[in-house]
Amino acid sequence: MTNSVCVLGAGSTRYGKLNESIIEIALNAAKGAIDSAGITPKEIQAGYISNVFGVADKQVHMAPVLMSNLGIPNVPGLTIESACGSGSVMFREAYANVAAGFYDCLLALGVEKVTHTGTTQSTTLFSYCSDFFYEGGNGASFPGLFASIARAYLTTHKATEEDLAYVAVKNHDNGLLNPKAHIRKKITVEDVMNSPVVASPLKVFDCCPFSDGASAVILCTEEFAKRSGKPYMKVIGSGRGASPAAVQGRADITTIPSTVAAAKQAYKMAGLRPEDIDFAEVHDCFTIAEVIDVEDLGFFKKGTGAQAAREGATRRDGRIPINPSGGLKSKGHPIGATGIGQVVEVFEQFTGAAGDRTVKDAEIALTHNFGATGASAAVHIFQKV
Amino acid sequence: MTNSVCVLGAGSTRYGKLNESIIEIALNAAKGAIDSAGITPKEIQAGYISNVFGVADKQVHMAPVLMSNLGIPNVPGLTIESACGSGSVMFREAYANVAAGFYDCLLALGVEKVTHTGTTQSTTLFSYCSDFFYEGGNGASFPGLFASIARAYLTTHKATEEDLAYVAVKNHDNGLLNPKAHIRKKITVEDVMNSPVVASPLKVFDCCPFSDGASAVILCTEEFAKRSGKPYMKVIGSGRGASPAAVQGRADITTIPSTVAAAKQAYKMAGLRPEDIDFAEVHDCFTIAEVIDVEDLGFFKKGTGAQAAREGATRRDGRIPINPSGGLKSKGHPIGATGIGQVVEVFEQFTGAAGDRTVKDAEIALTHNFGATGASAAVHIFQKV
Repeated sequence: MTNSVCVLGAGSTRYGKLNESIIEIALNAAKGAIDSAGITPKEIQAGYISNVFGVADKQVHMAPVLMSNLGIPNVPGLTIESACGSGSVMFREAYANVAAGFYDCLLALGVEKVTHTGTTQSTTLFSYCSDFFYEGGNGASFPGLFASIARAYLTTHKATEEDLAYVAVKNHDNGLLNPKAHIRKKITVEDVMNSPVVASPLKVFDCCPFSDGASAVILCTEEFAKRSGKPYMKVIGSGRGASPAAVQGRADITTIPSTVAAAKQAYKMAGLRPEDIDFAEVHDCFTIAEVIDVEDLGFFKKGTGAQAAREGATRRDGRIPINPSGGLKSKGHPIGATGIGQVVEVFEQFTGAAGDRTVKDAEIALTHNFGATGASAAVHIFQKV
Repeated sequence: MTNSVCVLGAGSTRYGKLNESIIEIALNAAKGAIDSAGITPKEIQAGYISNVFGVADKQVHMAPVLMSNLGIPNVPGLTIESACGSGSVMFREAYANVAAGFYDCLLALGVEKVTHTGTTQSTTLFSYCSDFFYEGGNGASFPGLFASIARAYLTTHKATEEDLAYVAVKNHDNGLLNPKAHIRKKITVEDVMNSPVVASPLKVFDCCPFSDGASAVILCTEEFAKRSGKPYMKVIGSGRGASPAAVQGRADITTIPSTVAAAKQAYKMAGLRPEDIDFAEVHDCFTIAEVIDVEDLGFFKKGTGAQAAREGATRRDGRIPINPSGGLKSKGHPIGATGIGQVVEVFEQFTGAAGDRTVKDAEIALTHNFGATGASAAVHIFQKV
């Protein structure tokens, strides 16, 4: 590991229901990142793509198609999949390749398009991300699995369904300030509590939407970044973790082992503690997930994550702002893109492009993204330069 | 790049129509590799999976499921996809991670299960690996695309359909000696010439089959390999390349730019020339592909690859044995596994496990595997220790 690795540019499409093809969606994000970095496509040496259900839009083997459309058909690429954590797991591989000196500059791009298949087909496809033999194949969808987790949490700790609602309200408040967010709608705790039950105790407003979208960043050595004269940020921590694939295989389902392991590794590499982080983008596919994340990442003591949301500690002006972008809940969750979208948010925050949702005086940020119910996860820490 | 990287163990299922689930198929190969390496699962630090159509058996996000089933649920993994070249592209990433010092020992496993979907659905799925906008979506299936390539080759160079048939006959001869091969059947040039036309000039016996199967290797540092006391081989060359995604975007369709680039990089790293290679496993999805491969890899001059097959230069006792395993043509082509299956063959050849198909006195071997019509490719070179 010889190189200091930096993010030099970032681009993203709007998240939501998009009508373009998956390739057009990806290209829009790629062009945004390339423009933002002030480079030409010819400076890109490799393409790292994250995507889960390319089959839904009839295109896998996406890297050659993207590179060809960018006018750099001889640049090698690949696709990495790790369910909803694909983006962060791919980012980790891209990071490792630059750190190790294999490439000086690469494109890391996440993309997903599923909304055109409809809710039933999307839910079916997504269930293939679970341990299908034990979970999806027996009718345990992700809302059902996270409902079990939520029920266990509410039973074990001093927390209520209303506490969870505060997570949704806060993320919608943030997303309202994000022009690229999927669901820009102010909601109240009452709205959440009165929304239809999906899988008790989770209601519609406890769940993130199915989204289409793409996000991309340019990853490079610090030498390369410096030469560009453009603003950049450093990757100072990177960690990965894994959990038993099926929820039933875990000793305690109110914590996610992969998050704990990935965070430990990332903090160690950065030489930092949770209290050194100025804000974080975390994986809030359901409100309960964010509550567990902020505990597993060390921001709050076990059993106090829900209370933290109620008390406003995770709001943009709170002790540790969580998901200033709006998170998966409001910004949206195009599953292959989500992990890269988090990095885009950090880049925009650090380079003065986050507008009214800017977290004041932030210099260190963390991203956390997991797959399925946390079977895989990656955590990264970034420093403003 | 600090570490010398080695292959310590290898395992493979039979290739063909398999009835087990994709996870069971993968586990069988994983256990074979682990046993062959003489390690315990707990020594594995990461799982690199290659797979394209997990959706066909309702399981993506395969690494956590595999690791959980191996009793190592906390070991992180991921899936890499690059169409039919997934195995070699994944092997390259796994290699890079060990070379760079991120891991000392990992499992690199390729798997595919598609035959249960039937030929029509498999053909449809596979077409998503092409540039779907230009190719698959307009009815250009892979047999059709390779037929165009074959027609261009036969028109440009002094070669006949009969010359192509010799590739099939040779690979079937080799596959007959491989107990894990999909199609173990001796055929003659006449059999090939008289078989039904799929897409002229390609006939049934010019095409590889749809196969299920998994192959796995243990990849580790040389230090780790030495400590094991087991036989191992070194990875001495690694290269990747890319071509315009759609065949129509290439200046000359009788050569594959990704192969040429990947080979150049691998030879340079190994400090070797084509004439130093004792045998090679190459990507013969269609007979014409092997003819082009052996030219692009530098074994034969442009336009003489077909003649080489006719003259027996690529037979097991020829100047440069090609596909002693039987190749994709006879051993089979479970697309996510193929690139790793090639490495398994080299390992078996180098460790005295190849039986009657052993290439005499072989010490240096090359593997070559590409995706789609060669939009992506990787080449690796191995040395017997």
